Amino acid sequence: MKALIHVTLKPDVLDPQGKAIGAACGSLGYEGIRDVRQGKLFEVELDAADEAAARPLLAELADKLLSNPVIEDYEIVSIEV
Amino acid sequence: MKALIHVTLKPDVLDPQGKAIGAACGSLGYEGIRDVRQGKLFEVELDAADEAAARPLLAELADKLLSNPVIEDYEIVSIEV
Repeated sequence: MKALIHVTLKPDVLDPQGKAIGAACGSLGYEGIRDVRQGKLFEVELDAADEAAARPLLAELADKLLSNPVIEDYEIVSIEV
Repeated sequence: MKALIHVTLKPDVLDPQGKAIGAACGSLGYEGIRDVRQGKLFEVELDAADEAAARPLLAELADKLLSNPVIEDYEIVSIEV
């Protein structure tokens, strides 16, 4: 079973890395790029009976290990058998 | 217009960060996690007339600035007006 988890900074947390990329876009001549925010992406392969069993495990993993809940949000984007 | 871009290591490139997370899962008692691979996620806000205009700009941006094409693949996951 394969799952995809997004971890992004909460909307009100500053993202200097994204800002730097946005500024680089401007100086490299890419017009029209207004804002860039960077997040993390995790592809997790796991053994679970079904999606209903996998989801709580993935949620705990994302909350405890993959994200910092003070400044980041996570989303379980997909779970594929 | 808002776009989401995934940047992941090519399948044959080692991912020590993902391996470390996978090992941490084991030592924290999360059974059943077989493998973890970490990638990057970019949320890009841009001005473009439509999706057809945005896609080549985003592809160039992803290829030139957001990813290292030697070791990474990118995917434009979504473009929303």
